Amino acid sequence: MSKPSLARGTRDFGPEIMAKRTYILDTIKHVFKKFGFLSLETPAVENLSVLMGKYGEEGDKLLFKILNSGDFAKKLKQEDFDNGAPAMLSKVAEKGLRYDLTVPFARFVAMNRHDLAMPFKRFQVQPVWRADRPQRGRYREFYQCDADVVGTDSLLCEAEIILMLNEAFQKLKLPDFAIKVNNRKILTGISEVIGKPGKEADLCVAIDKLDKIGKEGVAVELETKGFEKKHIELLYKLFDSNALPTNATLKARDSVDEDTQKMKDSGMPEEDAVIMEELFKDRLKNLEYNAQVLGSLKEFLKESKIGLKGIAELEEIFEMVKDFGLDNSRVEVDFTLARGLSYYTGAIFEVQAIGVKMGSISGGGRYDDLTGTFGVSGLSGVGISFGVDRIYDVLDELALFPEDATESTKVLLTNFDEVSQRACLPILKKLRDADIAAELYPTSAKMKKQFDYANKKGIAYVLAIGSEEIKSGKYSLKDMASGEQKSLGINEIIDILHV
Amino acid sequence: MSKPSLARGTRDFGPEIMAKRTYILDTIKHVFKKFGFLSLETPAVENLSVLMGKYGEEGDKLLFKILNSGDFAKKLKQEDFDNGAPAMLSKVAEKGLRYDLTVPFARFVAMNRHDLAMPFKRFQVQPVWRADRPQRGRYREFYQCDADVVGTDSLLCEAEIILMLNEAFQKLKLPDFAIKVNNRKILTGISEVIGKPGKEADLCVAIDKLDKIGKEGVAVELETKGFEKKHIELLYKLFDSNALPTNATLKARDSVDEDTQKMKDSGMPEEDAVIMEELFKDRLKNLEYNAQVLGSLKEFLKESKIGLKGIAELEEIFEMVKDFGLDNSRVEVDFTLARGLSYYTGAIFEVQAIGVKMGSISGGGRYDDLTGTFGVSGLSGVGISFGVDRIYDVLDELALFPEDATESTKVLLTNFDEVSQRACLPILKKLRDADIAAELYPTSAKMKKQFDYANKKGIAYVLAIGSEEIKSGKYSLKDMASGEQKSLGINEIIDILHV
Repeated sequence: MSKPSLARGTRDFGPEIMAKRTYILDTIKHVFKKFGFLSLETPAVENLSVLMGKYGEEGDKLLFKILNSGDFAKKLKQEDFDNGAPAMLSKVAEKGLRYDLTVPFARFVAMNRHDLAMPFKRFQVQPVWRADRPQRGRYREFYQCDADVVGTDSLLCEAEIILMLNEAFQKLKLPDFAIKVNNRKILTGISEVIGKPGKEADLCVAIDKLDKIGKEGVAVELETKGFEKKHIELLYKLFDSNALPTNATLKARDSVDEDTQKMKDSGMPEEDAVIMEELFKDRLKNLEYNAQVLGSLKEFLKESKIGLKGIAELEEIFEMVKDFGLDNSRVEVDFTLARGLSYYTGAIFEVQAIGVKMGSISGGGRYDDLTGTFGVSGLSGVGISFGVDRIYDVLDELALFPEDATESTKVLLTNFDEVSQRACLPILKKLRDADIAAELYPTSAKMKKQFDYANKKGIAYVLAIGSEEIKSGKYSLKDMASGEQKSLGINEIIDILHV
Repeated sequence: MSKPSLARGTRDFGPEIMAKRTYILDTIKHVFKKFGFLSLETPAVENLSVLMGKYGEEGDKLLFKILNSGDFAKKLKQEDFDNGAPAMLSKVAEKGLRYDLTVPFARFVAMNRHDLAMPFKRFQVQPVWRADRPQRGRYREFYQCDADVVGTDSLLCEAEIILMLNEAFQKLKLPDFAIKVNNRKILTGISEVIGKPGKEADLCVAIDKLDKIGKEGVAVELETKGFEKKHIELLYKLFDSNALPTNATLKARDSVDEDTQKMKDSGMPEEDAVIMEELFKDRLKNLEYNAQVLGSLKEFLKESKIGLKGIAELEEIFEMVKDFGLDNSRVEVDFTLARGLSYYTGAIFEVQAIGVKMGSISGGGRYDDLTGTFGVSGLSGVGISFGVDRIYDVLDELALFPEDATESTKVLLTNFDEVSQRACLPILKKLRDADIAAELYPTSAKMKKQFDYANKKGIAYVLAIGSEEIKSGKYSLKDMASGEQKSLGINEIIDILHV
């Protein structure tokens, strides 16, 4: 007999969690579809030749490898054994588990490019696996939820990503979030201006840690990477130039008041509303703030052709968002945004939920050569990834899941005895034919047990059908939340349950 | 550079296939939910201690094992290496990939039984992995789609499974199918009567091959298993007693004619309709046929208490189905139905699509001790599994996918030039705000290219917005199927597209 346990870093999603996750994913998928993205699924198991070397040395280590089936040791020689795991690996494992959705997507595009409508817009929602050390909020098996367009470098795609992010998080009723935007070309420009052209990778890695280690930490890291003090000072001049002008704060005031009032009207406790008010202020600074940042950057990057191109791209994207009829108030230029992955070549995106302690809940960007590694070059693309687990945690913390996201069976028919059970069957069928999720308790257990079942399962109504009810054709419907009980005919019951 | 390839026995599901698969799965899930089943997902990666020994010796071999992360060789000793793969396995791999949905479900129930509303009704739709030799229709990674009730032995669950199967395949518009039903206790009874009590496992394995190797083949197999000639003759007497009475055929005639007429009215070609007519006849024989088979069985099993119990269970199930208001015309008693798995203890189900060469498209049954292997005994359950891949093939072969199952973006806005693109953006937003899947071609490419894109992607309408259209506020909407073109205002367009 084996003691049942979960593999480290994995989770079961029981019915309640599944309902909430489905709510999140359905909301996001619906937005993807409205924007013309179509669904793709790739296998969990890929050849290691497809996966290895795509995620850096660390990634290669974190890939889960699958032991060859049959006699996996048959190709092993004594010298392989003597040389240990690295020498044995390629002889015992030829397949691995999907590590992200981007590389399998690239493989798919490379293999099917002649059959695909280009530009190809696909979304993909599947689990990925990483042999990371599990810790709070970090799992070895977790879902990614990506949308990418490949085969065009039109900035319309970037503008639409901002629209999709905005719509998805509004649909999820997230009260406040910031869509942070940067451009890799700006980072390249900065590295040029501070006298280290081509060193933007080092620059990005260091800047990426700004939140965690602060300016001083970044300075130390840059020095160890060979940046000189005078360059770092130049960089800090840029940091400081971004200080927000006070008049912008004042200008944003009016609309903040309005949003805050709405918040209070919604019945939010006073102290939470005060916090939200502060957050709204910050958000509404963005319109002014973006102009200010782009102005400072333009001045700073005036000698860098590529840097200025990065700014021009951002401006064009913002212009399109405005033409779409959306204000850019949630969009925030953040030239310190670099993200871990180094393959972005244009726009970089990240979404942060405001008012919750949580890393980014979405991220993505433009890459220039998705399929080059598979022998098909020249395909530029841009994509976005929604962090499902973090979005779940945010919605949970803010109690933003709608009631019907957790909805279970709508009505339980109690089972008194054999006669009652028999009378229940046609009624049960009638309810289901009216598209109402209904069930009959399968045995004539004690009523307490049957009501406990309804409670535990979150069933909204209980319908009692005993001998009296069978005679009269009126059944007793109990609303489990209010405790209210009514005697009703089947059609009236259907009307109530059907809402 | 690596040449991109799929791992053997795995598949990509591109947009068109995904849309059709989603249609199938959504249809089935909707039925599950209406019957009070809630969603569960378990991780793909399980500890081998959970998986090993659950699927027999062959299953243990077919399990995909995952190499331990880090230095997988660190526990290996020279003697392990000398003894080969079996000795090395437990030291290099502690995890494996899900092989079916039942064992992880049992693990989940055993670990969470105190928190679950019992009886626990769950559905689960996830991929599983088996290191089988890939061949046509058999994959190494494929989806299973299961619903189980655990924690009750009420036969209501069996009746509801018949209802669910019936509803799901009707919703999928399958013109004809048979729900075959048997009971393990009948098989036990038969093995008693033919003088081999307790040998029903051997009997089942042999009977299971009836389709493939015929009566004579089964006889040979039974003889090698120690059954005597006289026992086998007794068995064959039972086989022969099931011959269908001619008057049943005649009685069923009227309703067959009616169904056949419907089929012809639907515009089915004459020769197909003739084939269908024959199939309907067979189906409608069932009501008489079942009574006949149960009669023969009762006579044959009159000395076997357990055999008669099996028959009584089937009769009770049929009675409930009838009480639900459903005729049993698609249900067929088949006492040769054994299915491969040997853990069924009560009812056994299987669904066959009639008129298509295909194995069973669904199967399941009652088992008595789901979680015993995890130290929790006494939980009886019953479940059903839908064969998604085969259902897909059947619907594809019979051209039964509805048009909107493959629906892509609804409308493509053409992109003439920069001015037109800009004018398109607010229109695009308006369409999407009306919940219409819409996209704008991302560059001002040649019109032929843009129309090719719409065709390839299966987009139903193309909306042209050039300088004339911008001036007039009337846009040219082309129906790609009919070729019809109309000049319309935006609200009229929304009305047309919104259907």
